[in-house]
Amino acid sequence: MYHSHALVESEDIGESTRIWAFAHVMRGAKIGKNCNIGDHAFVECGAVIGDDVTIKNGVCVWEGVTIGNGVFVGPNAVFTNDMYPRSPRLDAVQNRYSNRDWLRRTHVHEGVTIGANATIICGITLGSYCFIGASAVVTQDVSSHARMIGCPARERGFVCRCAHTLTADNADVWSCPECRRRYDNTMKEIGFA
Amino acid sequence: MYHSHALVESEDIGESTRIWAFAHVMRGAKIGKNCNIGDHAFVECGAVIGDDVTIKNGVCVWEGVTIGNGVFVGPNAVFTNDMYPRSPRLDAVQNRYSNRDWLRRTHVHEGVTIGANATIICGITLGSYCFIGASAVVTQDVSSHARMIGCPARERGFVCRCAHTLTADNADVWSCPECRRRYDNTMKEIGFA
Amino acid sequence: MYHSHALVESEDIGESTRIWAFAHVMRGAKIGKNCNIGDHAFVECGAVIGDDVTIKNGVCVWEGVTIGNGVFVGPNAVFTNDMYPRSPRLDAVQNRYSNRDWLRRTHVHEGVTIGANATIICGITLGSYCFIGASAVVTQDVSSHARMIGCPARERGFVCRCAHTLTADNADVWSCPECRRRYDNTMKEIGFA
Repeated sequence: MYHSHALVESEDIGESTRIWAFAHVMRGAKIGKNCNIGDHAFVECGAVIGDDVTIKNGVCVWEGVTIGNGVFVGPNAVFTNDMYPRSPRLDAVQNRYSNRDWLRRTHVHEGVTIGANATIICGITLGSYCFIGASAVVTQDVSSHARMIGCPARERGFVCRCAHTLTADNADVWSCPECRRRYDNTMKEIGFA
Repeated sequence: MYHSHALVESEDIGESTRIWAFAHVMRGAKIGKNCNIGDHAFVECGAVIGDDVTIKNGVCVWEGVTIGNGVFVGPNAVFTNDMYPRSPRLDAVQNRYSNRDWLRRTHVHEGVTIGANATIICGITLGSYCFIGASAVVTQDVSSHARMIGCPARERGFVCRCAHTLTADNADVWSCPECRRRYDNTMKEIGFA
Repeated sequence: MYHSHALVESEDIGESTRIWAFAHVMRGAKIGKNCNIGDHAFVECGAVIGDDVTIKNGVCVWEGVTIGNGVFVGPNAVFTNDMYPRSPRLDAVQNRYSNRDWLRRTHVHEGVTIGANATIICGITLGSYCFIGASAVVTQDVSSHARMIGCPARERGFVCRCAHTLTADNADVWSCPECRRRYDNTMKEIGFA
């Protein structure tokens, strides 16, 4: 279902994906099924979004950003795809922008949460089910299930698949007080408590 | 006056409220009179906005956010309403999103200023006439007239009803160098100097 | 070329400037030639933008903001133009907003980069070719070619016209490892290495 006020130019969008008002999905953008793309979002040609993804309002997904299944991107969270941006019409950068070598890719793995107003510096990978706090500024790779907070973002514990903070039962086992899932030290799931 | 490019679906909007281009006010959103809702703003079903409020461009007011009279919300300031957001289609959170228990409310009292690009973590109350600095990240309740700065935001003095910083005349009295209002230690107004 | 979904009310826009979908340029805004104004951007009456400028998605350029030639403003970067914002309909500020004395200007000089989600506090000047990092919060004047990072932003070295970080060859000379430009201690260019 595409809102009558959305602008959807891509033909590569899965079934049951909703696109809200004033969102713009460019031709050449790829979006999976069962997604929700909020108002005023922008998905650029070359961006890749998996299934079951929620993109909240005002988020831009650029070429070079790949988003896995089940990811949540909070309102006004910001991706980037260039480490040395200048206006491409400046004399000093004519050469640089004459091809796509400037592009730095970002990979967001399955189930990740990116909090509201967070900033993701390009060239990194966000491990599955990690949780980027609201307004955090992520400058390097993030481990699976890690909870990242601050500017620059630092690792502050781990979260469950359900997003709640894990507690260390002992040196080898973590568990979720909310849903009872348990994990080993590599964040591999080992059943329920 | 609703701009011809605005999308206004609510019928619960007070008189003399202006809604600008590419703003979207959903059915079920409540907005008082004499407000100004900027371009690309979004007001969700369930949001409540008082009278004389200014919502600048790109702000989303979600279900669960209640905004008092005379509040200013700066451009791209961000509210939230979920402490543990995940994409609702993820298997691990099907239960959680089956009802509205996940919703955490935010209350913004009369006369508050929320600066540009600030982030308001949900579940808190912003006291009347407090002043959230640009890009501050507010994670807990804020006292009336408090001036909050940084990430996470810390209390840095107090501001007047007119927004200027108060100076301590003595242990019991604060005054505004700009408009001469005076306050006691509880930030109760005690007339003009 | 103005996108069919853009709203362009100004007649003071230079040739070959592109304005993307859902962007709004008000009557009285001035934009030079060869610019690129992204989706969901907003350019207010009284804003002045030079030639060859790139304004990415979701950026608002307010009255009081002057942007020089060849500037890059990253996605969701935020300008401000009032140090003491309150909702103008509040009783306590009726006087203040009865004229334009509240307006604080911001000057962005030639070739500057403002990173994604950065916040620019009003009343300052960003020197030519300075580089404001993503999500930085700039609160004071910035020197030409300075690299600014953090909240509040601090000076962390210098960048070349091409945006790469300069290295100090000796006490008097800086050079760019990428494009070989050289600069003296005042950031005046002194040829190529």
